[in-house]
Amino acid sequence: MNLQIHRQDLGGPAGRVWLVGAGPGDPELLTVRALRVLQQAQVVLHDALISAPILALVPATALCLDVGKVGGGPSTSQAEINALLLVHAQAGRRVVRLKGGDPFVFGRGFEEVIALQEAGVPVEVVPGITSAVAVPAAAGIPVTHRGAATHVTFLTATGAGDDDALRTQWGHLSQAGGTLVFLMGLRRLEAIATTLVGAGASPERPAAVVSKGTTPDQRVVVGTLATIAALVDAAGLPSPALLVVGEVVALREQWPSLLSVLDCESERPAWA
Amino acid sequence: MNLQIHRQDLGGPAGRVWLVGAGPGDPELLTVRALRVLQQAQVVLHDALISAPILALVPATALCLDVGKVGGGPSTSQAEINALLLVHAQAGRRVVRLKGGDPFVFGRGFEEVIALQEAGVPVEVVPGITSAVAVPAAAGIPVTHRGAATHVTFLTATGAGDDDALRTQWGHLSQAGGTLVFLMGLRRLEAIATTLVGAGASPERPAAVVSKGTTPDQRVVVGTLATIAALVDAAGLPSPALLVVGEVVALREQWPSLLSVLDCESERPAWA
Repeated sequence: MNLQIHRQDLGGPAGRVWLVGAGPGDPELLTVRALRVLQQAQVVLHDALISAPILALVPATALCLDVGKVGGGPSTSQAEINALLLVHAQAGRRVVRLKGGDPFVFGRGFEEVIALQEAGVPVEVVPGITSAVAVPAAAGIPVTHRGAATHVTFLTATGAGDDDALRTQWGHLSQAGGTLVFLMGLRRLEAIATTLVGAGASPERPAAVVSKGTTPDQRVVVGTLATIAALVDAAGLPSPALLVVGEVVALREQWPSLLSVLDCESERPAWA
Repeated sequence: MNLQIHRQDLGGPAGRVWLVGAGPGDPELLTVRALRVLQQAQVVLHDALISAPILALVPATALCLDVGKVGGGPSTSQAEINALLLVHAQAGRRVVRLKGGDPFVFGRGFEEVIALQEAGVPVEVVPGITSAVAVPAAAGIPVTHRGAATHVTFLTATGAGDDDALRTQWGHLSQAGGTLVFLMGLRRLEAIATTLVGAGASPERPAAVVSKGTTPDQRVVVGTLATIAALVDAAGLPSPALLVVGEVVALREQWPSLLSVLDCESERPAWA
């Protein structure tokens, strides 16, 4: 590779943290920079949802810790994660904090940046492919398209169903009319759909859930705000998953070769 | 690299198109897949804003055509681009359509997918790092952050200032309160700011413009919706640029080591 690099060489002083986006799951959707940083890591602290093929890229000599939360399982608090990052960086190690998607799209990445800055530890952020764009794409859904969506909003499911301010906010977003992409929404899918409809969204608005997007286990369920929760429940889709709401969902039918592969749900999506 | 790949090998049948996101400009922010596809291309059709270090990765033996639009300059129509893709793919070549950022985030990528599908030409989409996330990050601005923005919306400047429906839409988005990221907005910056304030956004809302983000020529101007257009005009920022509106802009002050580099505007941002 003949890349022009203007950065501090990785072989230089250690004792720093690279906050790296791992992308949606497919190891080929790592950035060149992320791959390089990962392969030279001495310590890796990673989220629970990082795919096995990506973790396989970590050097065998590196300390590799899962600090992620799994529903109901053990997890590491944000304060503990910050402390681990500091301990290893201040011991002079090359520390990679590996997060799914992009570190600044609901990744709490900036909280870690602030903690490291306050302790005087240098930090480099390596953006990742956000699942909010790539996972719909892998399911044949463009998040924007002329005539279907002139804007796209990324949200989480936090607070769905039990917050008046949030219902007002989602009402405005629904009336604005663009694509909505909810990350980490599978457990709260029914609450999201109910809140959106309660806030004024049409129950007939197209909706799709994509499970394990960009991986060989990808599955897609398509419906409307009124039907999607029951359809996904019946299909038994596993996490991680995301929800796409909007007219772009219907564009999926215009990509027949992709559909033909996705219908055989154990196979690789055609674009990947 | 020890990557697990489940795709059709690149050395297999040619006569197909790879629709590839080039990311925001930094060649190390190409994905592993994008780099691999680009280095084996026989024909490359690229947008005007693809950075020189990325174009340097195209094999010298490949036909490399700029089909992009530059303000006021010559451009290639979408119909002509579709025709060029078809001609080269149907001649059995490996054709890369290289777009800035991600192909499905305002890239008109899905229009090309449909045209190719209708002609029976196989197409693979390779998502790219969207500038809407990575360029603010390179300027020290996370597009989401607890307590500052629970959602983020990507928009373009199309129609700003002359469309009632759009004013209503932007009014809803402003009242929803999340981060707004406008792509390709530099020429229409004043119209965007005026339309947002006319639609109900506070003129004191923080705003930042980032020019040539993630490249060594990156420059950042910070103000409010009331002041940003005049500040950017006075600074003479060049395209490409994007506009970030929202409380996350103020978080930039919490990343002092990044700021210290960006203040020397000819230098590389610290994270990159």
